[in-house]
Amino acid sequence: MIDKISFASDYLEGAHPKILDRLIQTNFFKSVGYGLDEFSESARKKIRKACDCPDAEIYFLTGGTQTNAVVIDAVLKSYQGVIAADSGHISIHEAGAIEFCGHKVLTLPNHYGKISAEQIKNFVETFNNDQNHDHMVAPGMVYISQPTEYGTLYTLNELKTIKKICIENNLILYIDGARLAYALACPLNDVSLKNIAELCDVFYIGGTKCGALIGEAVVIPKKNFIPHFFTIMKQHGALLAKGRLLGIQFDELFTDNLYFEIGKSAIKTADKIRNALEKFNYKIAFHSPTNQIFVILNNEVMKNLAEKVEFSFWEKFDEDHTVVRFATSWATNSDDVDKLIDILSQT
Amino acid sequence: MIDKISFASDYLEGAHPKILDRLIQTNFFKSVGYGLDEFSESARKKIRKACDCPDAEIYFLTGGTQTNAVVIDAVLKSYQGVIAADSGHISIHEAGAIEFCGHKVLTLPNHYGKISAEQIKNFVETFNNDQNHDHMVAPGMVYISQPTEYGTLYTLNELKTIKKICIENNLILYIDGARLAYALACPLNDVSLKNIAELCDVFYIGGTKCGALIGEAVVIPKKNFIPHFFTIMKQHGALLAKGRLLGIQFDELFTDNLYFEIGKSAIKTADKIRNALEKFNYKIAFHSPTNQIFVILNNEVMKNLAEKVEFSFWEKFDEDHTVVRFATSWATNSDDVDKLIDILSQT
Amino acid sequence: MIDKISFASDYLEGAHPKILDRLIQTNFFKSVGYGLDEFSESARKKIRKACDCPDAEIYFLTGGTQTNAVVIDAVLKSYQGVIAADSGHISIHEAGAIEFCGHKVLTLPNHYGKISAEQIKNFVETFNNDQNHDHMVAPGMVYISQPTEYGTLYTLNELKTIKKICIENNLILYIDGARLAYALACPLNDVSLKNIAELCDVFYIGGTKCGALIGEAVVIPKKNFIPHFFTIMKQHGALLAKGRLLGIQFDELFTDNLYFEIGKSAIKTADKIRNALEKFNYKIAFHSPTNQIFVILNNEVMKNLAEKVEFSFWEKFDEDHTVVRFATSWATNSDDVDKLIDILSQT
Amino acid sequence: MIDKISFASDYLEGAHPKILDRLIQTNFFKSVGYGLDEFSESARKKIRKACDCPDAEIYFLTGGTQTNAVVIDAVLKSYQGVIAADSGHISIHEAGAIEFCGHKVLTLPNHYGKISAEQIKNFVETFNNDQNHDHMVAPGMVYISQPTEYGTLYTLNELKTIKKICIENNLILYIDGARLAYALACPLNDVSLKNIAELCDVFYIGGTKCGALIGEAVVIPKKNFIPHFFTIMKQHGALLAKGRLLGIQFDELFTDNLYFEIGKSAIKTADKIRNALEKFNYKIAFHSPTNQIFVILNNEVMKNLAEKVEFSFWEKFDEDHTVVRFATSWATNSDDVDKLIDILSQT
Repeated sequence: MIDKISFASDYLEGAHPKILDRLIQTNFFKSVGYGLDEFSESARKKIRKACDCPDAEIYFLTGGTQTNAVVIDAVLKSYQGVIAADSGHISIHEAGAIEFCGHKVLTLPNHYGKISAEQIKNFVETFNNDQNHDHMVAPGMVYISQPTEYGTLYTLNELKTIKKICIENNLILYIDGARLAYALACPLNDVSLKNIAELCDVFYIGGTKCGALIGEAVVIPKKNFIPHFFTIMKQHGALLAKGRLLGIQFDELFTDNLYFEIGKSAIKTADKIRNALEKFNYKIAFHSPTNQIFVILNNEVMKNLAEKVEFSFWEKFDEDHTVVRFATSWATNSDDVDKLIDILSQT
Repeated sequence: MIDKISFASDYLEGAHPKILDRLIQTNFFKSVGYGLDEFSESARKKIRKACDCPDAEIYFLTGGTQTNAVVIDAVLKSYQGVIAADSGHISIHEAGAIEFCGHKVLTLPNHYGKISAEQIKNFVETFNNDQNHDHMVAPGMVYISQPTEYGTLYTLNELKTIKKICIENNLILYIDGARLAYALACPLNDVSLKNIAELCDVFYIGGTKCGALIGEAVVIPKKNFIPHFFTIMKQHGALLAKGRLLGIQFDELFTDNLYFEIGKSAIKTADKIRNALEKFNYKIAFHSPTNQIFVILNNEVMKNLAEKVEFSFWEKFDEDHTVVRFATSWATNSDDVDKLIDILSQT
Repeated sequence: MIDKISFASDYLEGAHPKILDRLIQTNFFKSVGYGLDEFSESARKKIRKACDCPDAEIYFLTGGTQTNAVVIDAVLKSYQGVIAADSGHISIHEAGAIEFCGHKVLTLPNHYGKISAEQIKNFVETFNNDQNHDHMVAPGMVYISQPTEYGTLYTLNELKTIKKICIENNLILYIDGARLAYALACPLNDVSLKNIAELCDVFYIGGTKCGALIGEAVVIPKKNFIPHFFTIMKQHGALLAKGRLLGIQFDELFTDNLYFEIGKSAIKTADKIRNALEKFNYKIAFHSPTNQIFVILNNEVMKNLAEKVEFSFWEKFDEDHTVVRFATSWATNSDDVDKLIDILSQT
Repeated sequence: MIDKISFASDYLEGAHPKILDRLIQTNFFKSVGYGLDEFSESARKKIRKACDCPDAEIYFLTGGTQTNAVVIDAVLKSYQGVIAADSGHISIHEAGAIEFCGHKVLTLPNHYGKISAEQIKNFVETFNNDQNHDHMVAPGMVYISQPTEYGTLYTLNELKTIKKICIENNLILYIDGARLAYALACPLNDVSLKNIAELCDVFYIGGTKCGALIGEAVVIPKKNFIPHFFTIMKQHGALLAKGRLLGIQFDELFTDNLYFEIGKSAIKTADKIRNALEKFNYKIAFHSPTNQIFVILNNEVMKNLAEKVEFSFWEKFDEDHTVVRFATSWATNSDDVDKLIDILSQT
């Protein structure tokens, strides 16, 4: 219960009110457990439709790290690793959850959160040409985030080129969509949910950071691509007895375009802040068109600002400057945005 | 959305209405993530008080299998295994989640879900006396459930004797309290939450099956008994970004004795059904005084019953009979109980 | 350097002298590492021929526990476990090496070290019929030892029936041949190396207990049955830089029938001891026709005997009696056998 | 059985003849298994003396990757990773053996195979200062190789500084001594075995690449630093039944300074080659004073050379040049060295 206005993250509040409403309405319906309930089934149908992917298998998990670990472990062979940006969530901020499952994260230098088809191609070629590659971890998968951890976006063309390299090199393509709503709603974005379903072997639609209490929806476009995923989830402690909690939420998120509306609202407030920052001559760290805004602040300015606003420390820029992050979400209200702009104008 | 009346499990519905109310009230409060929020902190204080254990560390996880795997893996050394009843949840129904973390489950034959101090003692002695025990998995922990998977209860005296053996043999004592509310509320039970906190090195208070949407509260009575548990949770994919979802629920469950009231209500309805079964000369499989009732049905009777009531298949008794389970919960309503009794009287 | 005569195990000495000779002869030949050398290649050819299995892939590892862990982990899916006798080496005496790799050992009660096709069938049927089997570890493999840990033998007919059940239930059949030489050389045995290669998906020919310094030869009859086994070995720390050490030994063991001669010699001495035991009215614990002899001794007799002879404690029989094991090997010499018989005659 | 003269690696031949002699002499002594034999015990005493470390615990394993994986897994907590040079053996050439055990390798850029105390300090400081470090893999250990994979050496002063940083930051210091003999025998080296035993929490003395058939001796200077290491070895499949094979070899290696003599002989031949390369104006890639020599060859020259001599490809230098490695060992003979020099003079 923070007093200051806060743009510290996109998971500061509970859930979108429609989701809570739905939980209340359905509370006394009795249903079977483990995601086999009718709510989850209904959510699956809606997601399949949204993805234009009638055969997709869909599973609901509770959080991003869990989802990444379960999916990557389910898909990789024991001797394979996963290629990721060095800034990828799995590379740094999952406490070694991928390695806990026995797999190496094979990192590539990121460009504002992104890696390129060219980098992937070079990595695999170098591996293949290494005479000792049988003594090395084989790349088996490419992990990317849309939007990235830096709020940036892959273009459709970039994803298609990455996919091409993946096909040529027998690499599975996996997209972490923790904040996917904010990508889909971004005017600069040209990658639809259908595109993602076409291009990926597996991906997830993030709920926790996009309006749900918790929950991520794993989509496996091609049926049977991951046999026994249900049991693998159970084995990883990722199967909820009350799977309905996730099913109900995703059913609501995919009713009347709620998931997309949530994204739009966050982009709108983010854009408003971006414009103000520009207007007041703040230095943008790099262009990130989604719900996260990265600004380089003089440390003195940062200190003053921090008395009135919550934001995230991102990284040291130089001795006197720091990169900080402002995040908006479905829950960001106009009053807070106006207050922030006012504060920014005075600092 | 099952039409028939259902006693199939204790996780058929959403959550206790008070919990939903609380989620709504708190929905727009902004809080930090990962269980560091004020709701979780408040829940911790209340649980510490209920356990009479001011130094306890408390962590919130999402489900039983996850909790068992994370706790057991966090506590055992790599070369150690966990002693459990062969009917224990970790022994059969967790898809090998304990082995996934590298640990063997060392099973002892159960007596209606329970194991005895004597069995544990003999097991450890046999291990110690085995000249090859350095080539074997060392017992490092005892896992028991209160109530057990058969709905039976350990007495305080039994637990104290088990604890004594644990101390003598350097074994950690861990109690799985997935249905703890139903033990605590049972008139035949003589083991309080305080007793459990005194006797265990670590245990969990079940939420998912006792009124919450999801959630289990791990209690570590002695501070620092499991260093870095937070990071270990993260590594296992068990740390929620919106930890508040769990904190709010447990805060409510431990307000005005709600957790205990939930248990009482389920025991009351279970007792009513037990009495009816007895009255109508049904054959009880074994005495289980909590919210689960195990009945031996003639297969013909079972078939007829199954047309009107949902219950669980438990195990084959003989060619002509089957053990089935009726479960009540916080959500079981009187009308359904009356209907069930009516049906039972006619079958 | 034990003074007493010793029948404590079949790995008391170094290696068969022919193997040492060969190591000396080849010592200064230069060869590539990691089992790609010409000695290993030559050994592979001979083993393929002995197995009548021209396409077999063959890998050399250093010990039984390592071999079991690497093979089982390489072959099982993450959610699968391995069926084994509760007396199986993997079930008790490998310090949890299988669980360390994430897999549960699904134990069946043994009959003098053996399990039956019927038991396996029942286990799988029970699993399949369990409505919760998606929450359980799926049986993926059958592990048996030939000879067993009790020195007993599967008949060809028994193995064929087990194989049939395996095929019907999609189970991989794996034979641990740590002491295979002693089975192959046993007059009562009707299972040839070719039979084993026909029936198994993977098996290993034991070297450490059958005349080698160290070494086990994994045979995969069907090419490509375990892709990337080389890298999996490396990942498990089971790949020797000087793979030639294993190749040279197996090349020698499969030259001029040495492996079979080693077995014969041990069976001959074991039979001599068995006859003497019978003659002197010792109580045989159970019939084991290979190089291990299990005798029930009065504890007093055992104590006296132990002053003159080394043998292994096997298990307590009752308060006054103990089962002990005498083992012969390729290295057992006639003098020691005569001394043992003399001692047995006087005890 | 390579025809050309070969400087491809330091494990081309069998074992030092004295080791083979010893195996023959001891072949028929009977001994107990699993490294509890008198040969292993004698080897331990000699190694303790050579390390001036009377309380050291010593275990014998079969290869470098195995040793690294077992030691690192035995020592790290589950949530910890190991700091290593990005060129370290564990970082690239162990097929993910460390990750297989659940631990992340935290890589630092190498300087000709080495990392500095400063780099380690910065890494730990950055970790500690990261507000999200509870979501990250904690550094628990420093892994370095002496000599490094590039044949370079840490000075005593450098090791002392690294040790200081380790103590200040609660990091375990581990040295991979796969080629330790070649460091100890190098005239430029100022780090003795005693220094290493003083500075390290655990290290290993390499046998496989220094004259043994196979074998690495893990030295744990402080008693009980790694409890239950025996069982942990077993669990990793790293415990030999015939432990004597390793014990006998290390007993011989530490008799009459054989281990040091082996090193000297390899350094002598390497120096001779280095001098010749310099004389004939070959371009040394970087200064490596031990048994490995790295030369930058014009690709045309490399091709010609490769027709007469075996060497290792190391890495591409530029389009027209390649870094190659020549390695000497205990087994390198003068004739081959003379031939090589002659060839080098003509190319």
